[in-house]
Amino acid sequence: MANRVRVFAPASASNLGPGFDVLGLALVSPGDIVEAELSQAPGVEIVEITGSQSLSKDPGINVVGVTASAILQQLNHHNSCGVRIWLHKQMPLASGLGSSAASSVGAAVAVNHLLGDPLSSKELIQYALEGEAVASGSRHADNVAPSLLGGIVLIRSYTPLDLVALPVPSALRIVVVHPHTAVETASARELVNKQRFSISQVVANLGNVAALVSALHSDDLNLFSRSIQDMLVEPIRAPLVPAFSKVKKAALAAGALGCSISGSGPSVFAFAESDTVATAVSDAIQKTFTSAGFNSDPYLGPINTKGAQILPPR
Amino acid sequence: MANRVRVFAPASASNLGPGFDVLGLALVSPGDIVEAELSQAPGVEIVEITGSQSLSKDPGINVVGVTASAILQQLNHHNSCGVRIWLHKQMPLASGLGSSAASSVGAAVAVNHLLGDPLSSKELIQYALEGEAVASGSRHADNVAPSLLGGIVLIRSYTPLDLVALPVPSALRIVVVHPHTAVETASARELVNKQRFSISQVVANLGNVAALVSALHSDDLNLFSRSIQDMLVEPIRAPLVPAFSKVKKAALAAGALGCSISGSGPSVFAFAESDTVATAVSDAIQKTFTSAGFNSDPYLGPINTKGAQILPPR
Repeated sequence: MANRVRVFAPASASNLGPGFDVLGLALVSPGDIVEAELSQAPGVEIVEITGSQSLSKDPGINVVGVTASAILQQLNHHNSCGVRIWLHKQMPLASGLGSSAASSVGAAVAVNHLLGDPLSSKELIQYALEGEAVASGSRHADNVAPSLLGGIVLIRSYTPLDLVALPVPSALRIVVVHPHTAVETASARELVNKQRFSISQVVANLGNVAALVSALHSDDLNLFSRSIQDMLVEPIRAPLVPAFSKVKKAALAAGALGCSISGSGPSVFAFAESDTVATAVSDAIQKTFTSAGFNSDPYLGPINTKGAQILPPR
Repeated sequence: MANRVRVFAPASASNLGPGFDVLGLALVSPGDIVEAELSQAPGVEIVEITGSQSLSKDPGINVVGVTASAILQQLNHHNSCGVRIWLHKQMPLASGLGSSAASSVGAAVAVNHLLGDPLSSKELIQYALEGEAVASGSRHADNVAPSLLGGIVLIRSYTPLDLVALPVPSALRIVVVHPHTAVETASARELVNKQRFSISQVVANLGNVAALVSALHSDDLNLFSRSIQDMLVEPIRAPLVPAFSKVKKAALAAGALGCSISGSGPSVFAFAESDTVATAVSDAIQKTFTSAGFNSDPYLGPINTKGAQILPPR
């Protein structure tokens, strides 16, 4: 067993248009780094947090503490050891990039590794969800699962947790642009929870999410493009994103295969079929945010098919 | 151009659990037979209907007349000819078997053939939907499309019509059992139209329909089985099917991969992974209907991958 470990856990984009709470994918960057070491003092200590001023070092509140404590309690019955954690935030909070999920996943993978890797990926997801629930107010796996596993992940069911790894077309590129404003995940979710949906809205998303999955399996980026449509949640959350309708129009005009809100926003995502188009789309989105008075950060590249990774010792 | 043609158009099962209005598949049997010939008198004449006492021979009311008239008006601008039709109903009405869709499709394929096959499959579906709308009160392609094309069809979008042919696992068997009672499609639809759905119901179906499509592409009957679940419409329509909860329990106990309501009922469908299991499931369902006081007819076999077929001349 290692005494110290460093884990990279990637950011993720969830929903992907029609797949509210059931689809997510991992980005190559950004991602959080969680360092952890075994200690003789029982319990979890968060030694340091870099990259964020606002996060608590209280292990009962911070997602890395909650996740690490849950695993430790499960595996270390005799309280014979504890864990010390350093969290290096490398992405904005409340951004729609799966920031809390990445921290949770990093902590889960790190603590599991320190204890000899006894837990399966599926078990790690369950523990990471406990951390994620602290941040978002509910247990949603559409960021946690892709951050851990990589690729494009479908959550068929939450009870029991049933995950499907979907094929990733090799040409596919993802663009996520984060405008400098924040959306609280819990309140964005409340907007959706209180809504009731007509059957025609539901049918539109059923058809599109089914077609999106078929398109991934058959490497059909044309069908994939037609499927990136959301009649359910995008209309509710669009007001949370600065100039969203203009941003979407600009992305599509620049050649995007589709564009919608990443998670609960304010980040938007778009798909492209090459690096060149991805760059043009990213530029068009940033320009539109700038015109609306918002600076922004772009993240673009292929889909991250590796997920969370243990980094070599420094 | 042929002067006379006979067309077989198969029955179909729609929704398939999670895919309300977006999924349907064709059965090997039963199916309607539409015979048609060119005539010198303009317009459409329905000469004879066998197999049903209740259907009107008025071509403005009967689905075959509506579909045939729509095609004729489009293609035969000079009113230089007409069409005479014989409709042989070989399946019950208001059964959940796509009876009106089969008649519409049979008429569309027959009239198109008499006129030299100028229309594409997609155009034929549009015309058949006009007939279908007469019977069901709305244009829904989840019976028409599989009856015409065969196989398992996904309707990504209605406007514009966008269809995806899904892979059919070779081991898959479908069982449809029709209890001797009727459900009016239009009133069954009204039950759904007036309903509003919570996001948790919607998410459950999004996950299942996406997983069902992934399972078909990866030939994974285990995942397929877990995906045949409907939180949206089955709870609303179950009271329209005699002893539905017992029927479903019996089907699953006999080894069905899944069981739900076919279209708007009262027929139920189940999937099986072999002919032997399909027979056991069919028997179990029929026995349960009998106990509830209903005779029934079973239809079981592989998925019909051919769709509507022009039959050899007699």
